Amino acid sequence: MKPIYTGKTKDVYGLEDGNYLLKFKDDVTGENGVFDPGANTVGLTMEGAGKAGLRLTSFFFEKLKEHGIPTHYLDADIAARTMKVVPATVFGEGLEVICRFRAVGSFLRRYEKYAEEGQPLDAFVEVTLKDDQRLDPPISKDALDMLGILSAVEYDILKELTQQIARIIQKQLADKDMDLYDIKLEFGRDTNGEILLIDEISGGNMRVYKDGEYVQPLALEKIMLA
Amino acid sequence: MKPIYTGKTKDVYGLEDGNYLLKFKDDVTGENGVFDPGANTVGLTMEGAGKAGLRLTSFFFEKLKEHGIPTHYLDADIAARTMKVVPATVFGEGLEVICRFRAVGSFLRRYEKYAEEGQPLDAFVEVTLKDDQRLDPPISKDALDMLGILSAVEYDILKELTQQIARIIQKQLADKDMDLYDIKLEFGRDTNGEILLIDEISGGNMRVYKDGEYVQPLALEKIMLA
Repeated sequence: MKPIYTGKTKDVYGLEDGNYLLKFKDDVTGENGVFDPGANTVGLTMEGAGKAGLRLTSFFFEKLKEHGIPTHYLDADIAARTMKVVPATVFGEGLEVICRFRAVGSFLRRYEKYAEEGQPLDAFVEVTLKDDQRLDPPISKDALDMLGILSAVEYDILKELTQQIARIIQKQLADKDMDLYDIKLEFGRDTNGEILLIDEISGGNMRVYKDGEYVQPLALEKIMLA
Repeated sequence: MKPIYTGKTKDVYGLEDGNYLLKFKDDVTGENGVFDPGANTVGLTMEGAGKAGLRLTSFFFEKLKEHGIPTHYLDADIAARTMKVVPATVFGEGLEVICRFRAVGSFLRRYEKYAEEGQPLDAFVEVTLKDDQRLDPPISKDALDMLGILSAVEYDILKELTQQIARIIQKQLADKDMDLYDIKLEFGRDTNGEILLIDEISGGNMRVYKDGEYVQPLALEKIMLA
């Protein structure tokens, strides 16, 4: 098992069979002690956050598998906080794909002249570059294509997959009386160049509300897997 | 003649025949005494800037008419610094449509991880909201559609028109050995809902270089109309 990469919330190891092992850490993103799924900094360490994130990730990836969605997920070992995945390369130096059902966060800050807080959005998809220094700038289909990051055809696949995945997760949350406001996904290409969902799907990737109150990631895991 | 609107660089008057008169002012956008076509503030007053802007605008609108491009332009009175236009309404509270042939300005600031300064771009089109308070945020085709500002069909027309117009202007400049880096256009709907180019096309709307040096708006007018 060879260490490959140390990330904000996960470490990555190479396995002898060519697959990879993701080790979930007990760190979550946020600033000034407040959890914020959209933040770039790791500001909090929460006991059990890694295990909770992995349990929820494993739960959602299994659901996506049932729906035939291509993902990098193979299996998970909750006790060891590890998940086995197939190899995949990210687009450029990494993209974040956001699907929005409600106007909050950076969408609202940008388009407040035209949108009300919490206004329903019909699975609106946007892409941002992973670039902490430039505050993860949004980037259009045309710009992704022109800069050689993602072709126009790949963008359409990515958008379609994102909406399918977000709606499956929205449905799972709705079954527990929770409302998905937005979710952040990551994609890559497998060894055949096919687009597939990578990374994780846990409370830290989404904004979820229940009875009008924001649901913290750890609380989300408890409600979903109760 | 009825005053309708006082803008940063133009005043607008309503005419009895239903058309409008734009009166060009001798103010240009910039900050701290430096002219910047991308800035939101009016910081400079230059003798003759209004007349120069109108002469160039009139020149380009006449060229576009020859190419069958729909615009709001009817005619101009250079001495009076006025231009007569047909009525048009902007999209939402106004959009700016940018066409880029070189990676500079805000494009470079956002995508510097993937683009080199001055790198050629193939008539790349992007749209920003006119919203000084939120620093004119970029907005995607999907977001424009979802927020009811511009339909997906209208976006495609807008993009196609923008590229046609930018290439016509690029050609005119190239004939005088000048290189168009980027240009900012505005569009609206006429009384039949058809999309047409509005506002002006002068040095303040574009970044132009000659022998590797930036060409100031007043210098640009002199070179083009010599």
